[in-house]
Amino acid sequence: MQSPKIAYSAAPSYTSHADAFRRGTTSPLALLEAGLARIEAREPAVRAFVALAVERARADAQRSTQRWLDNAPLSPIDGIAVGIKDIIETADLPTGQGSPMWTGFHTGRDSATVQALREAGAIIVGKTTTTEFAATEMFASTANPHDPQRTPGGSSAGSAAAVGAGFVPLALGSQVVGSTIRPASYCGCVGFKPTYGALNRGGTYDQLSHSSAGVLGATLDDVWIAARAIASRVGGDPGYPGLAGPDLMPQARVPQRVVLIETAGWNSATPGARAALDAAVAWLRERGVDVVARAQSDKVEQFERQLADGLLELTQSIIAWESRWPLESYAQRNRSALSHTMLKRLARAATMTQQDYIALLARRTQLRAAFAELVAGCDGVVTLSASGAAPPGFASTGNAAFAVPASILGVPALTLPVLSDENLPLGLQFIGAAGEDAALFSVGNWFASEARAH
Amino acid sequence: MQSPKIAYSAAPSYTSHADAFRRGTTSPLALLEAGLARIEAREPAVRAFVALAVERARADAQRSTQRWLDNAPLSPIDGIAVGIKDIIETADLPTGQGSPMWTGFHTGRDSATVQALREAGAIIVGKTTTTEFAATEMFASTANPHDPQRTPGGSSAGSAAAVGAGFVPLALGSQVVGSTIRPASYCGCVGFKPTYGALNRGGTYDQLSHSSAGVLGATLDDVWIAARAIASRVGGDPGYPGLAGPDLMPQARVPQRVVLIETAGWNSATPGARAALDAAVAWLRERGVDVVARAQSDKVEQFERQLADGLLELTQSIIAWESRWPLESYAQRNRSALSHTMLKRLARAATMTQQDYIALLARRTQLRAAFAELVAGCDGVVTLSASGAAPPGFASTGNAAFAVPASILGVPALTLPVLSDENLPLGLQFIGAAGEDAALFSVGNWFASEARAH
Repeated sequence: MQSPKIAYSAAPSYTSHADAFRRGTTSPLALLEAGLARIEAREPAVRAFVALAVERARADAQRSTQRWLDNAPLSPIDGIAVGIKDIIETADLPTGQGSPMWTGFHTGRDSATVQALREAGAIIVGKTTTTEFAATEMFASTANPHDPQRTPGGSSAGSAAAVGAGFVPLALGSQVVGSTIRPASYCGCVGFKPTYGALNRGGTYDQLSHSSAGVLGATLDDVWIAARAIASRVGGDPGYPGLAGPDLMPQARVPQRVVLIETAGWNSATPGARAALDAAVAWLRERGVDVVARAQSDKVEQFERQLADGLLELTQSIIAWESRWPLESYAQRNRSALSHTMLKRLARAATMTQQDYIALLARRTQLRAAFAELVAGCDGVVTLSASGAAPPGFASTGNAAFAVPASILGVPALTLPVLSDENLPLGLQFIGAAGEDAALFSVGNWFASEARAH
Repeated sequence: MQSPKIAYSAAPSYTSHADAFRRGTTSPLALLEAGLARIEAREPAVRAFVALAVERARADAQRSTQRWLDNAPLSPIDGIAVGIKDIIETADLPTGQGSPMWTGFHTGRDSATVQALREAGAIIVGKTTTTEFAATEMFASTANPHDPQRTPGGSSAGSAAAVGAGFVPLALGSQVVGSTIRPASYCGCVGFKPTYGALNRGGTYDQLSHSSAGVLGATLDDVWIAARAIASRVGGDPGYPGLAGPDLMPQARVPQRVVLIETAGWNSATPGARAALDAAVAWLRERGVDVVARAQSDKVEQFERQLADGLLELTQSIIAWESRWPLESYAQRNRSALSHTMLKRLARAATMTQQDYIALLARRTQLRAAFAELVAGCDGVVTLSASGAAPPGFASTGNAAFAVPASILGVPALTLPVLSDENLPLGLQFIGAAGEDAALFSVGNWFASEARAH
């Protein structure tokens, strides 16, 4: 068997066009039109959007084009086309939350993230599909752009599919279990779930206690620059400092030492995914990176055992209690409009008390302390982003086990589309210490450069 | 000058009717009808409500009446009538946020607090007036129930007025500066602003980083029991343990030692308010409580200086940055629908950066540590709830200086209607350490019992 290839083959970043925009040799409008042409050609098969705002997008792109010609862009991402997960409010389009109960619901305001992106000159192309309330039930029929018979993953399904299909270079998602990292992995995108609280979730229908806004994109540069464009304008969640770091891409830095974790997902990883991770580890070691795995370290072994000890159960219990509201209110209104999954979540919550929840939070706090100790003095953690390529069919949005740790730990996670399984995309995941999002991108930047060059 | 009187003259609590409800000598429906009759008689002058749900309230009260007769109440407050501040979502009534921009906006769902109250059997009578976005601009014309030429205070204006007028025994509010403690003081209610995060703000349009849900009521017992009924069903904000303590009223406990603070409000306190606080201190000392003021303690003196050092400015700056979203989105939509106050807030935010905000958070954190040290080993802090009786006129909702400290510190505050100024109600405020809400009510319980007996 040939050793799996490590390759970062992303197109040039949006921000790399700045000079051409100023010279007028290309323009935000031209890039938008190219994306719209791809949407016209492939959206009937991919079905990434629940709503498009083509007219407004063209008008906005025209204005952005002029700003660049006037050498007065609002930000480095002025004119970038963005898809918005349909749990995030937009002033011009409804926010349906992937639920038949909310289809067409219109607040007339932008979320904090959308407000900031528009202030930075970004162009909102449309709303992208999501599972019901960003959980697991998919009422939309979005297909994976790399194989129409496979799921794009969830819950940021349409955002990942739209980026993977080249419809837009950037999209917003969210993650509480695996909703950014997993679909980004399946669709061949860069995906970023920042430190808890680092991007303002105002106007986003996901306020769970380890949820986070997510940014998906075709390139690492655009993802970071967009995330910073948000944080510098609307900050993080109220009371949090917000994503810290340079407004442009953090400089590449060679990691000295990273921890390899298998997570509870390892048992379900495909042979191809395992081989791909092994190859990534070998690739890192060839470049002088000290990769420490459970076999080499008792500390890692101990942490792996904690991750294997009912972590998904822990996150699901926390989510269940925190979802009593609004689910109970929804059930009162129209029980039949809720999926079986949501009714099960509500039933689980009904067995819980406030004291149970307090105990779950204590366990989570303890895990976070253990992780902080694990990564102290190293350059982060590496693992798979998913258990393999996107699985065939649409009954499930896939296995989220590899994404669960960073979510519950509230720490930054980044997936790079550098591996493959079954000739389909697979992500390599980097996880950092809380607040060290910029350092994570420095490592990602180095990795992407190396993986592009070789 | 006669020494001001200290008196707690609240009517019997709702919960004290339990036996009578079971026997059928009175009923939730009868109490509701009495409140509706008072609404019919005085609402034209008080104008506490933006919307009423009389038919549903009667039907709900009928069902509650039957549950008590069946000896199967859903909670100790089954059947209590509640007014809901109009920044809090209700499934059956719109949520207008006190803003012409949001008048009639309907989400079709209950907030977490309303969901919990309904689950406990409570009856939502209507939505109460609020200032625009729970700030200071009052588009509604609510009057103080004790003097129709005076403000009820804000922002929980209608909630305080409705309780003060005897329309409902309980109402929900919120507080980020003085929005629960101040109107409760002006309208002669009990008002409770819990520890930050202690009551779930889901579905409430106030997610600022030291905002809190507020509970206003005619009696101390009902306020505590309602707050616990909420926390035990829907918890606190996601990630927070939620209000802790017994489901019924915490037992009275004589405080040994309390700290007296003047706050930055002292200079603006009326002679009557100053005399009232002096009388309260004397009253406490007569009962053996060690009241420590700045004159007796360098530690208190030092803390007072910190409170006097631009605290209102600090809170307004934090609020301004956190309000960039959604205000900027609203301004894009319809600038002319925003008050001058909101445009000023937005203008202030425009001068700020993410780094400025981080520095403000650091100052707040430092103040919280200083307060924790101040109250360690004592039974809390006592001060005025407002600078005097409700001021005449409606141009302002009054001076919030006495309420600012507990808000910015994120600690519990309780106002009792036991003082007076200009023959109008004035509250005495008790402030506790973070998470010590139940202990605060134990002291409040003792105080109320003593002030009722003597």
